[in-house]
Parts: sequence; C-alpha cells; structure tokens
Amino acid sequence: MSEVIEAANRAREAARALAVASSSEKDVALAAMAAALESECEPILRANERDVDAAREAGVDAAIVDRLRLNAERIAAMATGLRDLVALPDPVGEVVRGWTAPNRVAYRQVRVPFGVVGMIYEARPNVTADAAGICLKSGNAALLRGSSSAQASNVAVAAALRTGLASTPLPADAVQLITGPREVTGELMRARGLVDVLIPRGGAGLIEAVVTGSQVPVIETGTGNTHLYVDEHADQQMALDIMINAKTQRPSVCNSLETLLVHAAIADSFVPKALAALAEHGVTVHGDARIAGHDPDGVRPATEDDFTAEALSLDLSAAVVDDLDAALAHIRRYSTGHSETVVTESLGVAERFSAEVDAAAVLVNASSRFVDGGEFGFGAEIGISTQKLHARGPMGLPEMTTTKYLVTGRGQVRP
Amino acid sequence: MSEVIEAANRAREAARALAVASSSEKDVALAAMAAALESECEPILRANERDVDAAREAGVDAAIVDRLRLNAERIAAMATGLRDLVALPDPVGEVVRGWTAPNRVAYRQVRVPFGVVGMIYEARPNVTADAAGICLKSGNAALLRGSSSAQASNVAVAAALRTGLASTPLPADAVQLITGPREVTGELMRARGLVDVLIPRGGAGLIEAVVTGSQVPVIETGTGNTHLYVDEHADQQMALDIMINAKTQRPSVCNSLETLLVHAAIADSFVPKALAALAEHGVTVHGDARIAGHDPDGVRPATEDDFTAEALSLDLSAAVVDDLDAALAHIRRYSTGHSETVVTESLGVAERFSAEVDAAAVLVNASSRFVDGGEFGFGAEIGISTQKLHARGPMGLPEMTTTKYLVTGRGQVRP
Repeated sequence: MSEVIEAANRAREAARALAVASSSEKDVALAAMAAALESECEPILRANERDVDAAREAGVDAAIVDRLRLNAERIAAMATGLRDLVALPDPVGEVVRGWTAPNRVAYRQVRVPFGVVGMIYEARPNVTADAAGICLKSGNAALLRGSSSAQASNVAVAAALRTGLASTPLPADAVQLITGPREVTGELMRARGLVDVLIPRGGAGLIEAVVTGSQVPVIETGTGNTHLYVDEHADQQMALDIMINAKTQRPSVCNSLETLLVHAAIADSFVPKALAALAEHGVTVHGDARIAGHDPDGVRPATEDDFTAEALSLDLSAAVVDDLDAALAHIRRYSTGHSETVVTESLGVAERFSAEVDAAAVLVNASSRFVDGGEFGFGAEIGISTQKLHARGPMGLPEMTTTKYLVTGRGQVRP
Repeated sequence: MSEVIEAANRAREAARALAVASSSEKDVALAAMAAALESECEPILRANERDVDAAREAGVDAAIVDRLRLNAERIAAMATGLRDLVALPDPVGEVVRGWTAPNRVAYRQVRVPFGVVGMIYEARPNVTADAAGICLKSGNAALLRGSSSAQASNVAVAAALRTGLASTPLPADAVQLITGPREVTGELMRARGLVDVLIPRGGAGLIEAVVTGSQVPVIETGTGNTHLYVDEHADQQMALDIMINAKTQRPSVCNSLETLLVHAAIADSFVPKALAALAEHGVTVHGDARIAGHDPDGVRPATEDDFTAEALSLDLSAAVVDDLDAALAHIRRYSTGHSETVVTESLGVAERFSAEVDAAAVLVNASSRFVDGGEFGFGAEIGISTQKLHARGPMGLPEMTTTKYLVTGRGQVRP
C-alpha cells in the first residue's frame, strides 16, 4: 500500500473519533497544538532555514523566499491563529433545519464533518497550521500536501502539531503531512472513497491540474481576475478611491483589482484623473486605444493576455466601454467569477450589474478587498471558492462541513 | 464545433435570460410546457411506440420495456408534475443570510441558479419532463442526455416542451435534448466552463463513469445499499413492520432495504419471525451461517457480493452481529452512504447509531422508504445525493441553486 493510501486510512480512523468529539475536546486540542508550535519554535526555525537556504541557492525570487521564511513572530502568529479558532462556534451539530411530518416522523438536518479533507497548497508554511486547525475545529482529519520548497518547514510544523495532539485524547493522525515525490499528488486525487474533499490552494496551474484531474470531489479556490466598472453615473471620487484601494492595498491577492472598465461618456473626465492617481501609486496601466489616447507615453498597449491573466502585481489593464452592456459582455468574457465591482449612483445600473454578473461576489460602491473571510466576519478562512457547488465565496468553518438527515419515528412505515 | 458545445453555448445564452426571469415568467412557461405535452400527446405516443418496439425486438426484459412505455395517463402525469412545480416557492432570490459590518458595508448571500445543468439519465422518458421542469423552475438551462433506448420518446417530449416554451418570452433553448453517439456523454463531461453541474441518474455503472470521468463538477445521485440494524433492545414487532415495509413496499428503488443485521442476543427469538414474514412476502433471504441456522433449507448462503451489491429486487442479505460495534463496522464496510436504519428502544444505542453512521440519512424506528423528496415535503426531487459536497440526501429546488454574495457600500475601502 502506498504512503498516501496508508495515511488516508489512518485519517479515516482519526476522522471517526473527530466526528464524535465534543467542542471542548477539539478546543483543548487546538490549544495544545498552539502550545506545541511555540515550544517547538527552535526546531521549526532550523528546518525553515534549510528551506530558505535551498531556495536562495536555487535562485528563487526574493519575494518568494520572503514568503517562505519563518521567524518567531510568524510562528507566534500561527499559534494565535489556532487559539483564535477556539473562540469560534463549532459548526458540527448545528441543526440547519428540521420539521415534523403529518405522520409525526421527525426530520432534522444536522451539520457533520466531511471526514477526511485533503489540502494541496503552495509555498507558505503557515498554511500547514491554518489548514490543520480549521480542519480539526470542523471535525475533519487533514491530509496536508505542501510544496516541496517548504517541505522541511512543513514537516517540522506538522510534527509540532502532532506532538500537541498526542498530549490530548484526540488522535495525532487527525493531522498528517504527506511528503514524497510529485506522483503523491496524483494518488491523493485518485483516493476517492478515502478522501472526502480535496481543496487546492495556490496558483492557477495547480488549481487547474487538481480540478480537471481529481476523482475526489474538489472545492476550487480561485484565481481572481476582478473588474471594476466605473459607470457614467459614478461618483468619480468614490471610483478613484475604490480603484486605488482595490489595486494597491495588497496587489498580490486574489481579491485585488485587475481590470478597470470606464463608461465612454465619462472617459474624458475620469480617465486622466485615474491615470494620474494610478501613476502616483506606481501602477503600470495596460490600456486599450481609448485609454492610451489620454496618455500615449504612459500607458502600455493592452494585450489579450493582459485582460485574461491575473497579474497579482502593480499592473492594471484598462478599457473604455460604450455602455453597461459592453461592460457586462467584457466581464462575462474574462471574469474568473471571483469578485466584480460597479461604482454607480444609478439604482438601475446597480441592480442590473448585481443580477447579471455571475460571480461569487458582486460589489456596489465598495472595494473588492472586502471579499475575504476575515472581512466577512467568518473568523477563519480556508480559501475563497470560485465554484458553484457546495460553497461560493469565502469559506469559513460551516463550509467545511456536510449535513446528515436524522429521521426519527415510532415505527412508522410508508403506506 | 461539436453538437454538444453548440448546445452548451446556446444553453449559456438561455441561462442568462433564465437567471433574471421572474417567478411568474417561469411559472407561465411551466404551464405552457405542460399544455404542450398534452396537446402533443399523440406524436409522443407514436414516437414511444417505436422505442418500445425496438426494445422488444432487442429482447429487452419485460419490466424494463414497461418502464419505457408511455400512455395517455403517464403523459398526463408528466404534465401534472410540471404544473405542481408552479405551486412551489421559487428558490432564486432567497436571501440565505445577511449582515451589516461595523463599517456599514452590507452583505447579502442570495440564491442564484447554477446556470447550465447537464442531466445524464437512463430509461424512463418521464425524466425528460421532470428534469426540464425542475431546472426551469430553479432558473437553470437544462442539457438533457437520455438513454438511446428512449431516444425517440425523449426527442418527442423535448420537442413538445420547447414548443411550449416558444409560446412564452423565455428561450426554447432553456431545454435541449442532446442526441448523437456515445461519445457525446464524454464531451458533456469535458465541457467545464460551459456546463456548471452534471447530475447522473441511473445505475451504478453510469454514476461511476460520470463521477470518475467528469471534469465538470458532479452531484452524485446514489445507489442505496441500505441496512436495517435490529438492536437487542428493539421492539420486535416494530422491527418486523419496518423490515417488511422497507424491503417490499417498492423493492426497485434506492431507499429500499438491502441488508438486515440482527443483534446476537435476540437472534433466536427474532430471526425465525423475520424469516417467516419475509417468506410470506416472497423475499429470498441470503443469510450468513447464523441466519441460515434457523432455516437451512429456506435461506441461501450469503456471498460477499450479496452484502456489497444493491439487489433492487425481492432479495435480502442478512447477518447476525455480536453487538452494536459489529453492526457499525458492517455498515461502515458495505454502506453506500444513502440511508441506514436502527430499530431500538435504547436511547444510548439510537444516539450512537445516529452519531457514528456516516450516511445521507440515518433513521431511528422508521422505514428507510421515507428518505425521498416527496416524503420530505420538498414537492419536487431531482434525485438523492450520496455525496457530501453541496447537497446530501433528497435534493429539491433549493439544492439546484448556488449563491452569490451581494456587497454594497457607499465608497468604503479597506484600511
């Protein structure tokens, strides 16, 4: 039996214990995991140093090396993340709905854990602790598959988490890190029946590979090619503020702005102000001809790729559109269904935009940076789903569960 | 472009119109579809005769030929099914939850249609009308792929439904039947991005093929290898009543009983009564040695396959188990996660069984035949999901939708 199948079988056993664990048992385990991260800080940092050195030697980009690097504060933040989960309500056992039929058979739909959750993720080692904690709080055993570049760090973090678990009545196999060669990911994707859900977190390539190749049901966490449509009836200062915030407040994340669409009727007044504000914030604009006309030297010509790809950098594609219909058509063509924004004072435009744009989140007169589990008040976030099945948008603890119908009678049979 | 891709593109266009259609527009369309089925009754029956003749010539089993056959009453029932949908609440637009953040950004999670739903199904032509109606009411365009044995009937039914739709403002392409060779099913399974969800309905082979082969997200509708555990603390008459009802009231469906498990402590008193009652109802028992010991001539020896497969006939596998743990272990090994039943007067046993059995529905002292959209009061049912993502158990209209977050502000940005 392969390492993956063995780990998945152990995870299933652990999941049985987790499914019937009380909230306080799980909270005690989370606290023990947090304490173990802190007491194992030194070995984790030593392991992390090996990953960082290897990445530097391999000539990896400095920004990526920085994401990989741990220090005492980052480990403390991981421990705090686990302790924050203790304060959140346990989703397991929630009665979602219930009713009594005319024949007095009683029905309850109750939240229960998935069972075994597989996470495939890239780069940052803090995801190891975050994902393990969210899975544990929601009663799921976690099979964690991190990137090879963070393997030493992930092994050390997972070992600490398991040490913490081992000091409690819950099974250490509730958290398992899967190491080994690339093929392991494929095995995880074929472990239907053993793994209940796979959640990929990372770049578009990873997500595409998992989504198209997996036989295990997948929750797709998404790339965000997000648009801001500035309508002819926009408050232009509001549009500028939202544009700058959505583009520059944290350009590397999925809810940051990628494409600006401006209604033709206000292009002459709005585009020069927008270009000036963007330049001031160090943003490179890739515009169509009608944008470039306002600053032929400053604006780079937009390619099809600029409109298609998620830049995740201080680059913004931009176009002038003739009307709302053209904006909707552009968004329909290029959107990844993450977050789409309109700035308008027209109720009619806001309503059509809200109704017709097909995305996890549609924003009216607010920055797309609000599309985030923390901003939504979920307390914990496992990712932002861009698929339509099960969960769409930021996923908190309830989204990490399924339900079960409990049907109780006194001997009723069907006539 | 292939027939499937062309149809899917037309379905996407239709889905845009459906997504913003009002409840009354959809209800008018359902009524028009029902009326068209009735007025096209003759051509549908003639087409159905061709399918029935072809099946008989091919030597198909009489029971299957009967399922294929339509008559005026069955067509009237299809029309009634569509009219019944009119009376049900429209799930689209329901605000699932909503809140206002401290910064006064307002969040609403609202039900919206999936978009394009693909249905792959076997045999009965009435599914064509049922699925089209449920998709339409929930705002989804339907791509229907029926079995080749019912193709003439399905073409005639779909044509009638489209004639009905064409008399309303909603697009006829909201309902499309996909004909063509076997490969078409594979194309549907690869149409990720064009088709939002695939729902297979049929035998285990079909479902397995779709679930493992599809790149489009799938809702697995399940085979039901359902168990009844008669605990030592059972009311034995209640257990007999539930056993006979669950096994014989309609043996061919997924919520019917397949395996009886009896606690060893009551085997001597219960098993003889159970065997007598089952024999009286024409049920063939495939038992383990401890069951067979009570009637060596009447009970056939149970094979591994008897415990594994869904018989869907008047055959029942049966075993004596030492205790609740052994019953739970048996169910864990063989269950397809559909519906599992315990009969007991012990609250402790009922609670452990409810908590530890991992299935869409767990029944205490009631027949598993209640696990059905109609019995649940859903009014319409597209199938019973045995997967854990999105929907689990009977799926009604709300399960045919996803959600979208609407986020509205007055220019708020993220600090």
